[in-house]
Amino acid sequence: MRKESRLIQWIWRIILVTALFFMGFIVGWFAKPTHPRTTNNSASTKYLTEFLEEIQPDKIREHLRKFTRLPHLAGTEQNLKYAEQIQREWKDFGLDSVEMVPYDVLLSYPNKSQPNYISIVDQLGSEIFNTSLAEPVPEGYEDVSDIVPPYSAFSAKGQPEGDLVYVNYGRTEDFFQLQREMDINVTGKIVIVRYGRIFRGNKVKNAMLAGAKGIIMFSDPADYWAAGVQPYPDGWNLPGGGAQRGNVLNLNGAGDPLTPGYPAKEYTYRFSLEEGAGLPKIPVHPIGFHDAIHLLKNMGGQIPPNNWKGGLNVSYRIGPGFTDEFKKQKVRMNIHTNNQVTRIYNVIGTIRGALEPDRYVILGGHRDAWVFGGIDPMSGAAVVHETVRSAGKLLSKGWRPRRTMIFASWDAEEFGLLGSTEWAEDNAKVLQERAVAYINADSAIEGMYTLRVDCTPSLHTLVYDLTKQIESPEEGEEGVSLYESWHKRDNWTNDRDAPRISKLGSGSDFEAYFIRLGIAAGRARYTKNKKTERYSSYPVYHSVYETFEIVEKFYDPHFRRLQAVARVRGGLIFLLADSQLLPLSANEYAGSLRKYAQSIAQLAQRHPGEMETFEVSFDFLFSAVENFTVAARGFHERLKTLNTANPLEVRVMNDQLMYLERAFIDPLGLPGRPFYRHVIFAPSSHNKYAGESFPGIYDALFDIENSVDPERAWMEVKRQISIAAFTVHAAAMTLTPPA
Amino acid sequence: MRKESRLIQWIWRIILVTALFFMGFIVGWFAKPTHPRTTNNSASTKYLTEFLEEIQPDKIREHLRKFTRLPHLAGTEQNLKYAEQIQREWKDFGLDSVEMVPYDVLLSYPNKSQPNYISIVDQLGSEIFNTSLAEPVPEGYEDVSDIVPPYSAFSAKGQPEGDLVYVNYGRTEDFFQLQREMDINVTGKIVIVRYGRIFRGNKVKNAMLAGAKGIIMFSDPADYWAAGVQPYPDGWNLPGGGAQRGNVLNLNGAGDPLTPGYPAKEYTYRFSLEEGAGLPKIPVHPIGFHDAIHLLKNMGGQIPPNNWKGGLNVSYRIGPGFTDEFKKQKVRMNIHTNNQVTRIYNVIGTIRGALEPDRYVILGGHRDAWVFGGIDPMSGAAVVHETVRSAGKLLSKGWRPRRTMIFASWDAEEFGLLGSTEWAEDNAKVLQERAVAYINADSAIEGMYTLRVDCTPSLHTLVYDLTKQIESPEEGEEGVSLYESWHKRDNWTNDRDAPRISKLGSGSDFEAYFIRLGIAAGRARYTKNKKTERYSSYPVYHSVYETFEIVEKFYDPHFRRLQAVARVRGGLIFLLADSQLLPLSANEYAGSLRKYAQSIAQLAQRHPGEMETFEVSFDFLFSAVENFTVAARGFHERLKTLNTANPLEVRVMNDQLMYLERAFIDPLGLPGRPFYRHVIFAPSSHNKYAGESFPGIYDALFDIENSVDPERAWMEVKRQISIAAFTVHAAAMTLTPPA
Repeated sequence: MRKESRLIQWIWRIILVTALFFMGFIVGWFAKPTHPRTTNNSASTKYLTEFLEEIQPDKIREHLRKFTRLPHLAGTEQNLKYAEQIQREWKDFGLDSVEMVPYDVLLSYPNKSQPNYISIVDQLGSEIFNTSLAEPVPEGYEDVSDIVPPYSAFSAKGQPEGDLVYVNYGRTEDFFQLQREMDINVTGKIVIVRYGRIFRGNKVKNAMLAGAKGIIMFSDPADYWAAGVQPYPDGWNLPGGGAQRGNVLNLNGAGDPLTPGYPAKEYTYRFSLEEGAGLPKIPVHPIGFHDAIHLLKNMGGQIPPNNWKGGLNVSYRIGPGFTDEFKKQKVRMNIHTNNQVTRIYNVIGTIRGALEPDRYVILGGHRDAWVFGGIDPMSGAAVVHETVRSAGKLLSKGWRPRRTMIFASWDAEEFGLLGSTEWAEDNAKVLQERAVAYINADSAIEGMYTLRVDCTPSLHTLVYDLTKQIESPEEGEEGVSLYESWHKRDNWTNDRDAPRISKLGSGSDFEAYFIRLGIAAGRARYTKNKKTERYSSYPVYHSVYETFEIVEKFYDPHFRRLQAVARVRGGLIFLLADSQLLPLSANEYAGSLRKYAQSIAQLAQRHPGEMETFEVSFDFLFSAVENFTVAARGFHERLKTLNTANPLEVRVMNDQLMYLERAFIDPLGLPGRPFYRHVIFAPSSHNKYAGESFPGIYDALFDIENSVDPERAWMEVKRQISIAAFTVHAAAMTLTPPA
Repeated sequence: MRKESRLIQWIWRIILVTALFFMGFIVGWFAKPTHPRTTNNSASTKYLTEFLEEIQPDKIREHLRKFTRLPHLAGTEQNLKYAEQIQREWKDFGLDSVEMVPYDVLLSYPNKSQPNYISIVDQLGSEIFNTSLAEPVPEGYEDVSDIVPPYSAFSAKGQPEGDLVYVNYGRTEDFFQLQREMDINVTGKIVIVRYGRIFRGNKVKNAMLAGAKGIIMFSDPADYWAAGVQPYPDGWNLPGGGAQRGNVLNLNGAGDPLTPGYPAKEYTYRFSLEEGAGLPKIPVHPIGFHDAIHLLKNMGGQIPPNNWKGGLNVSYRIGPGFTDEFKKQKVRMNIHTNNQVTRIYNVIGTIRGALEPDRYVILGGHRDAWVFGGIDPMSGAAVVHETVRSAGKLLSKGWRPRRTMIFASWDAEEFGLLGSTEWAEDNAKVLQERAVAYINADSAIEGMYTLRVDCTPSLHTLVYDLTKQIESPEEGEEGVSLYESWHKRDNWTNDRDAPRISKLGSGSDFEAYFIRLGIAAGRARYTKNKKTERYSSYPVYHSVYETFEIVEKFYDPHFRRLQAVARVRGGLIFLLADSQLLPLSANEYAGSLRKYAQSIAQLAQRHPGEMETFEVSFDFLFSAVENFTVAARGFHERLKTLNTANPLEVRVMNDQLMYLERAFIDPLGLPGRPFYRHVIFAPSSHNKYAGESFPGIYDALFDIENSVDPERAWMEVKRQISIAAFTVHAAAMTLTPPA
């Protein structure tokens, strides 16, 4: 071989080697994805299954047992001890951090040396009847100290004496009926009303507005007895000696009455008690029906309308005062309850998000209870505890959610949602920018029938999808999904063929997150059959009879209902925190807005003449809803073609979904209620419990229905329609391409 | 060669080929970056240079010339024509989209058939002197119609008649001095005050509060004449026949008076004129000093304090009324100005961001002028126009900014910042979530001395860095940077060795963006020498003499000062929109907060006794500032080790920077001013123009300084310190790691 030929051969070899290497390089370069896949959806699904499987009935039973042995009222040592225990156990479960977060808020306790009670006094001023000072203590708890007797937290002190007037449920319409149809003025009287239908604080406010100098609230069997059920301990009905505790504030979302709008910290300026938010100015006291009979049985005055009659064997006469025979007898309230700034403790646990640590999914529920809290709130707290345990287990297997999960054990919910509201105030700025969703975890069970979900419309689809992956807890429904079981028992007949989901109202800790800050929110629990069970909440609500045993014996003997609720609550936060694309639906929101707009317009259309006179039209609201519907549809269309490998593109779309709920917040708040800022959902001014859609319009129409200054009210309807239309248009804008 | 040997050789060859390919593949795989570099900083720098170079004096001259030929008051046809022209030209320059965005807002015009004027009337009611109905028209503009005569927009109508009282500048302290030291009550009187020192709307409010039935404002040579300068057209001083137009509202950020809080659209509910925000209830009128002499020369009453004397050859006696000789003469105001809902037009242009289209950097300035707007606002609008042209040029070369740029030509700024505020209200939700910064572009020049920048502290560093890259426009300073030139002329002596940057006040279109929404904001213009030139704003401000010629002849003959301002404004939005990491400094904010806290504490410490009595302490504010300082330092430390190749990590940090300014917003607003929500910066309640730090505390201390209900005011100081401390703590929290 010649030298040249050798050289050429070597050159060829080098070229070949280089070419081969280069080919490899090129293939390697292009084979590698530009962006690493940020989540692996099949891995996420596998983890979801493991997460739900890990949630077990016996564990929930154990958690409930250990946290219901002793009374743990907000502000007491025992409630701090439970907080410390929760902090320890959450750390043991494996959370990244668990903090105690204290605030100093206004609480209210009975005076231990001067008990509260109500008397009938004769003309000499002698107390000839006194209501009981405490509920009979249930078996097994006889040696427990620190059971707070039934009282109305934040009642004014005082010993008003006078004639009773019975005002049914104490609703706005009841007082109007009393004044206008029965021509009875309660100025200077003590009113007695039955519990139920509306939040007790609204009853107190109505009594004050009407001029009453005191208000007594009783649990009527018509509202707190299930048919054919024995009183506790033989069944789950409220005994005649039981009574409903509860706060009687009208906070409208203010949180701590002395520091509205700001967290109650060391440096925070506090208003005086006179300036405080929502504090009643008259004495208030709750009684059971055994005591109520004594106050009601001799009442005189007009015979009540039929729908004012409860289930006691008395006439339910209106008064004022007793029948002729007893008319010199008066009623005296003896109320010595004290307001007191007290330290409370939230427990806040965190799992840091792997890819988007600045996106928060929150599961929060309260820990403080009136007494043992067997149902309210510990059935919920036990469920949260088990959820945290299961999440910790998954962490130990190497899983970490895409976004940050926050778990909260709130304090002082019973005193006006104080712990959750102060924390929301403290963290408002970061929550506004970073919170994806808030799932509430108050009582997990209030009946034995089926699932109940209240949530924002954008969560509807997720709730349906998730409940299809969870088993029904009911005996005889093996292999049936929770969705099917629920669908069969509570179909959303009027609107669609799916299980009913309701609007969020208020009365639990989601309030500041949803109604003030505009964070997508939901709650889930097991409930009664609304069609057949007419009583309000559940019979033993806020009494000493809310024990571990009432759950174990009656509500959920196998703890499978609580397990199902835990899987719903846990599954929701799992999917919200770990899905690459946020599982929120703008289309569902569009559908709900349309329904609400139609329904509020119908309410107004009961007055066609006045609508014409005052030139009131809902057209602009309907066209805003149409605009929103188109924007939502376009958004979900664009989602389909999203390049999910591009993290910025994904983030941009997720941000639009996250901020959708925020778009419904009006920074100016609803009229006279600066902390209720959600234009689509808020309680009406007349009942904190009920969630109304378009509450600004609703409240103005309520005045019109009740003939309160109609000319002003119609102007207000117009103004509120305009605000609603603007808000829906603005929300639509958030869904269009950002530039 | 044996068959086996051949086979083995082939096997070896295949192995070699495979190995080579595999090696290449591996090298290729790892050679490719995991994330493509999202920006190329050297490319960005190159483009910045090109962008700034493209901005040229002759083009700015041309833009200014074409937009100052005709009067273009808000709501007039000519102002719409200019809007359409701007829209056309911005499209031609290459913006992605340019929209006209109309609103229907309350404007105010003189009645064309009943002119406004002020008379002196004798005892028979005859008008023996009338003020002029118009300013002498400058040469070259004699044939122009539609020059609106000097008037006070939104004045009440009326013909009040009475004695004059002279109240200096009409400040709160002037009225206090009048009432307390001179013992003069202005109830039922007409007050006459000189322009200057505070916003004219505050003068009107003070007069109303004091009970006056009318108010006359005049331009005193002491406040509107530069020494040694001729009146226009021979110099740039205000002629004696010139007067200052302007609105006299007290909006406090409300925007359109009839739709506070909401955009003034077709469907928007409008309040009645009686309910409208900020409308004065008394007649108001402005006059020049030739007319003022006639009203002042015969005034009687007390001799004024020296600092109440202006530059006219009159005694400046206080009144009430004229000297004995003339005391039967009264003054009558004849005001027929009409309020009228009128359509206005913003022009909104957009360059879509390449990587983060949902992040907005805004450059906005107004277009409406009282007459020609030679300085106010067209010197600014010409600069924006040139900035848009230069950006368009860059787009045509293939550049596209990382974030979205928005350019705005606002309407009706002169009527209360209406165009910019309505658009902010309309887009509040997306702006709150997406706006990075707002740069304002009102008048680009008000003097011939040096640069003036007012901006939020987080922009300080960027302003300094940028001005080092721009040339000084001054003759004889070739090769000297704008920074050096500015530094030499206006050093920030007390605080640091750098050019002075001031706090943002109000009085221009940044207000809704900065003070209501909490978007980082700044403004830049060329200004006078504050040390030697004592007149307010510039002499011909809001007169007919604000022409193209006054700029060309006196303020900026070579248009190099306007070029420098354009480069500052343009450079700011370029760097904010195109830098991978947002050029905002939390450390600068920390330093400023410390300075402000010290300064407000010093103000309070003038009253050490009362501070002790009322237990007022600034300690919590100082510890909040310390907390913020630590958080800011930590944040910038973490920035240094940021993996800039990870787009999500970059976004998370940028979001913290973007939302920093938002953290200073209190959703409840300042006391009584729901649309002024920035806790660190807002005008005092007593002067819309001046930016105060910690305005809530400042206003309460103002009352204390002026002995207005000190007990209440000290409680308010305490409350405001608590709110300030909370806000600074909350802002610190936004800078800590998100989980």
